[in-house]
Amino acid sequence: MSYTDFTVEQIDSVMQNAWNAFHVYRKFSLTQRAAFMRAIAVELENCGDTLIHTAMQQTNLPEARLRGERARTIFQLNSYADACEKGDWLEARIDTAIPDKTPPKPDIRKMLVPLGPVVVFGASNFPFAYSTAGGDTACAFAAGCPVIVKAHPAHAKTSEIVANAILTAAEKCNMPKGIFAHVHGAGFEVGKALVTHPHTKAVGFTGSYTGGKQLFDWGNQRNEPIPVFAEMGSVNPVFLLPEKLKVSAAEIATMYAGSVTLGVGQFCTNPGIIIGIESEALQTFIHDLGKAIQQIAPAPMLHTGIVDAYKKNKSNALLQEEVHLVAESETPSAVVNPDGGLNGLPTIATASGHAFLNNPVLHQEVFGPYSIIIRCKDMNEMIEVAKNMEGQLTSTLMATENDIKENDELAEAVKNICGRFILNSVPTGVEVCLSMQHGGPFPASTDSRFGSVGADGIKRFARPIAFQNWSNNLLPDELKDENPLGIWRTADNELTRAAVIKK
Amino acid sequence: MSYTDFTVEQIDSVMQNAWNAFHVYRKFSLTQRAAFMRAIAVELENCGDTLIHTAMQQTNLPEARLRGERARTIFQLNSYADACEKGDWLEARIDTAIPDKTPPKPDIRKMLVPLGPVVVFGASNFPFAYSTAGGDTACAFAAGCPVIVKAHPAHAKTSEIVANAILTAAEKCNMPKGIFAHVHGAGFEVGKALVTHPHTKAVGFTGSYTGGKQLFDWGNQRNEPIPVFAEMGSVNPVFLLPEKLKVSAAEIATMYAGSVTLGVGQFCTNPGIIIGIESEALQTFIHDLGKAIQQIAPAPMLHTGIVDAYKKNKSNALLQEEVHLVAESETPSAVVNPDGGLNGLPTIATASGHAFLNNPVLHQEVFGPYSIIIRCKDMNEMIEVAKNMEGQLTSTLMATENDIKENDELAEAVKNICGRFILNSVPTGVEVCLSMQHGGPFPASTDSRFGSVGADGIKRFARPIAFQNWSNNLLPDELKDENPLGIWRTADNELTRAAVIKK
Repeated sequence: MSYTDFTVEQIDSVMQNAWNAFHVYRKFSLTQRAAFMRAIAVELENCGDTLIHTAMQQTNLPEARLRGERARTIFQLNSYADACEKGDWLEARIDTAIPDKTPPKPDIRKMLVPLGPVVVFGASNFPFAYSTAGGDTACAFAAGCPVIVKAHPAHAKTSEIVANAILTAAEKCNMPKGIFAHVHGAGFEVGKALVTHPHTKAVGFTGSYTGGKQLFDWGNQRNEPIPVFAEMGSVNPVFLLPEKLKVSAAEIATMYAGSVTLGVGQFCTNPGIIIGIESEALQTFIHDLGKAIQQIAPAPMLHTGIVDAYKKNKSNALLQEEVHLVAESETPSAVVNPDGGLNGLPTIATASGHAFLNNPVLHQEVFGPYSIIIRCKDMNEMIEVAKNMEGQLTSTLMATENDIKENDELAEAVKNICGRFILNSVPTGVEVCLSMQHGGPFPASTDSRFGSVGADGIKRFARPIAFQNWSNNLLPDELKDENPLGIWRTADNELTRAAVIKK
Repeated sequence: MSYTDFTVEQIDSVMQNAWNAFHVYRKFSLTQRAAFMRAIAVELENCGDTLIHTAMQQTNLPEARLRGERARTIFQLNSYADACEKGDWLEARIDTAIPDKTPPKPDIRKMLVPLGPVVVFGASNFPFAYSTAGGDTACAFAAGCPVIVKAHPAHAKTSEIVANAILTAAEKCNMPKGIFAHVHGAGFEVGKALVTHPHTKAVGFTGSYTGGKQLFDWGNQRNEPIPVFAEMGSVNPVFLLPEKLKVSAAEIATMYAGSVTLGVGQFCTNPGIIIGIESEALQTFIHDLGKAIQQIAPAPMLHTGIVDAYKKNKSNALLQEEVHLVAESETPSAVVNPDGGLNGLPTIATASGHAFLNNPVLHQEVFGPYSIIIRCKDMNEMIEVAKNMEGQLTSTLMATENDIKENDELAEAVKNICGRFILNSVPTGVEVCLSMQHGGPFPASTDSRFGSVGADGIKRFARPIAFQNWSNNLLPDELKDENPLGIWRTADNELTRAAVIKK
């Protein structure tokens, strides 16, 4: 099934409805917002097998993965609803008046309020968790913002089913008309019209650098610039430190064969570059990783565009000077492709540190089950490699305690480029919790100060407003003396859930 | 005295030093950072009368105001130092591991880390508090960032004295070379070279829309875009609601005659537009405000550029259709100007709501002691006026409780456009405290999610990083189980200062 692109007139009407809904929804209590989010979670479950089977057809992702991803999406909605209701994210601040100060200090109280309608662009590789009812949508609803989703053309029907679930929940919860809209558009015009519409106040995006950067530029070139939170993936470097590699080369190879090929390598946290120092242990690691990769069967990728890009980018990387193929999968695929050509072949390459430092092509992401091992001549070159990397969602040290203590400069350089800093594990697998940071210095994301996983993501879509000299009964509940919502606030600089006692 | 503009080579050298300093300073403890900030405060005091007299010469601001502003600047440094050390701003988050979950949940801990070197552009109207050692500089040092200040050409010598105070404090506190640099540049090339330098990671600016927007665009057009926090002023609308106006017209007129002319109108929170509904009470208010303005003496403005712009913009506003002069100062200036032409003449004009809604010129800021009263025909027109206003630093309601309850649509519209929402007071006077929001929807500032007054401004210059699977002894002190710094953190979603007990 294919959908007709929305016209500029239709988009204008959608945004007008969202703007009207904003003025109603932003006054809804935290509890009402949370109830709406939980209702969406229920409706997602109610979509039953139809949703899973449609997504399987549209993404080639296996059933178990999609069931897991729906469960994750439901968990996101419910846990962000809990966070919404709890109100810590409001950053409520109260400073009571000091009338006898010169000049008198007025009573001032601050909290976050919603920005306005948020446009969400979902990811091809996460049809549920980073799409229509995914993290960006959940955060925006929690913040008090209406949401307009542009369906990903690769799984538009899946998106439509989820959109209907959201609309059902909206109706059951008596949400204002326009609280949510679902827009189809395969061409870039629809995206541009959404981002540049005057009623759009923020954008969430998960996908490629090209797509995310374009939205970011459109957002900033508006008469009224708006924040565009684009998570654009990265190569997620893994640094193998000498002592650790010496004792655990085989174990790390096994661990990373799994991580490189997980989900046919279609994760933004896929470890695309592994960096070691020339040694016998590194030879063992390369050999073992190559052997393991040979035994991992190819599987179908999301769609023709993705597999074609994978093949093209990988071929290009392998054609670069001083780059050598280590191994490819030699195991037949268990899945019969509809057209036989969707399989992503697990592949490992290698290159010298010198080649990496002199060739920007080797810094680029090859989205798929591919990783390149960079062989540095010594620790100094490894540090140079770290310092010459662009911003990353994650970076990983495989290291003993000695390795870290003896190589502080490397550890600091690696930490400085990433949003999540992992020790002795793999970057794939993004836990949904408050301490997660999924975002990183540009070009991993467009604003390193925020992330798209975990309830702190709600703050992307809100701004502070200070109330000066308001009497208690006219203040929002969040800021009233008696703290009727029981939320954490600072009162004269001290965090407390107690009622405010005026001086 | 005039200074030579820095060359691109000099700027490159300054930024290289800042980058090197960053890698040292970001590892300094909160206590070390706070000590440095307090030392700057001491050195500012040590500058004694020389600093005050130089600033008087360069800005035409009166001595008492400048002494007050230095005290404010010292208070900012000390109170942000307290906030820095307290560590609430770090948003420390801990989620402990759940090894028996499927898949196992790793230990993840998150905190804010500094972005990197911050370039600060000071304001002409606040030679201390929003300049060289002002709020942006204090916030950046607290966050762990080196600072590069471009001196405002109008008070470059004042800036130089303050810069030397910072450098003295840096030396006394054994700060790394490059922690602070002071750059001169009257032309735009210096600003552009600073904002576009690859080692610059954020920008703070206070000043005009034209200047701020240019820096914002340069920041976003870089290969690696960076956040530019520009506070660009606003017209700070004041809405006079009917019941309040009826009982307090004379009192409001007196209050606002003072606010419109405070500091010769040279505040970004100056009330530039006052909106009322046609009535006898409004006539009384206009009459009384006019009378009061006639009795306020003109005083010298900051410099020729400012007074010339004031005269030009005011004349232009008064030339618009349906705009009428209400009153001008008729009182002789007590201050003899060096060239006789620096005086800013207090002026009040008026126009109909219809004129305002149809003429964008009337929405623009006239920086100086000028305000225009918009006479709406009814509440519906007042709501239209509110809805057609651009983003504001502040907006004010002069209203009784009845006025607010009966005019919810107006109150919500006014709230939606501002960063600070004031009831029955004046917007001038920006208290330095945690609950302050000094910033607002564009074009008041470039990022409404942050403000430039109060310790929450520290967060502009920091980004979260998540540590996954690190052992306790390798974690930063801020995230260690035992909480050696005694800071507030969330542990498994609950705010606490207690040590973490692992499951």
